[in-house]
Amino acid sequence: MKLMEDRIRKDGIIEDGDVLKVGTFLNQQLDTRFIRTLGEEFYRLFKDENVTKILTIEASGIGLACLCALPFDVPVVFAKKAKSNNMTGEIYASSVHSFTHGTDHTAVIPKIMLSPEDRVLLIDDFLARGQALHALIDLCEQAGATIVGAGVFVEKTYQGGGAEVRGRGVRVESLAKIKSMSVEDGIEFCD
Amino acid sequence: MKLMEDRIRKDGIIEDGDVLKVGTFLNQQLDTRFIRTLGEEFYRLFKDENVTKILTIEASGIGLACLCALPFDVPVVFAKKAKSNNMTGEIYASSVHSFTHGTDHTAVIPKIMLSPEDRVLLIDDFLARGQALHALIDLCEQAGATIVGAGVFVEKTYQGGGAEVRGRGVRVESLAKIKSMSVEDGIEFCD
Repeated sequence: MKLMEDRIRKDGIIEDGDVLKVGTFLNQQLDTRFIRTLGEEFYRLFKDENVTKILTIEASGIGLACLCALPFDVPVVFAKKAKSNNMTGEIYASSVHSFTHGTDHTAVIPKIMLSPEDRVLLIDDFLARGQALHALIDLCEQAGATIVGAGVFVEKTYQGGGAEVRGRGVRVESLAKIKSMSVEDGIEFCD
Repeated sequence: MKLMEDRIRKDGIIEDGDVLKVGTFLNQQLDTRFIRTLGEEFYRLFKDENVTKILTIEASGIGLACLCALPFDVPVVFAKKAKSNNMTGEIYASSVHSFTHGTDHTAVIPKIMLSPEDRVLLIDDFLARGQALHALIDLCEQAGATIVGAGVFVEKTYQGGGAEVRGRGVRVESLAKIKSMSVEDGIEFCD
């Protein structure tokens, strides 16, 4: 999507260690008007899927999911990141490893928030190795909910996570697909 | 605001330890349509203030702030909670004590995200002792930004935080003001 690629070229900052910072418009600061426009694109792609709920993971996914939920007019649920793996009670839980931060945690949602009747659209900011999406898919599968697909803002295709998630049979739509990226050579998007 | 009070009576769960759970509509699950309606109320209250930015704190404030930002058509910035107090660099930072969780952390935003030209509306879910709001006010003062006020979804007036924040000269508008609350006697709102 040209709008997304242009904005990344303009305001994204590439740093060593394969880091793309989008904090001024997509993360810690959210350009709400811009993100609403992107949400309209996800709606165009998924509007025939009878989405009943949007699922994301804290913290960076929450604002994006809420703004993308507007045209769908559905509730948003976010998985909380718990430190411990031994939570009990009425929850669905799935472990997540963050390659960026080198940490492990557990993505958790109360069972009451996801049901077999739900048709779920997953939303997340980045798709690199796919750890967060795999966890969200696990949570939906535990609940018996239908996953209609995943809407991703930025996919690093060279990390392979997108191929893996698609290999699980999940439709993934990414607004910008990065083919390669480096501080020296800048960013190249997929055609 | 009757709409907010009615929803708390219907879906809020009072637990021991002065806890009011609103997770099914205002926190981990966000009733986006309902919250947008509440955002219209904040707009009615603050629309003449030339708001340029909405500031909140992760994680529970993010979705609320994004949905309330719609009628204002302004960006949202959220303060991140850092564990360490010895961060350096181009940031504003203020310490926060959570009475709920018994933890201390530091609310942090990059300096680039707040400027003396900004007229800031603070948004948060709960106002109890006021720790989070005090930190957000500190961040704005460090940046030299103007605080036009704070929009709060639920205020526990008996905790005193609201009186303190108002005592600092900040206009606080709360959609529901709880006068008293207990598992035994239920909830009583201020007139």
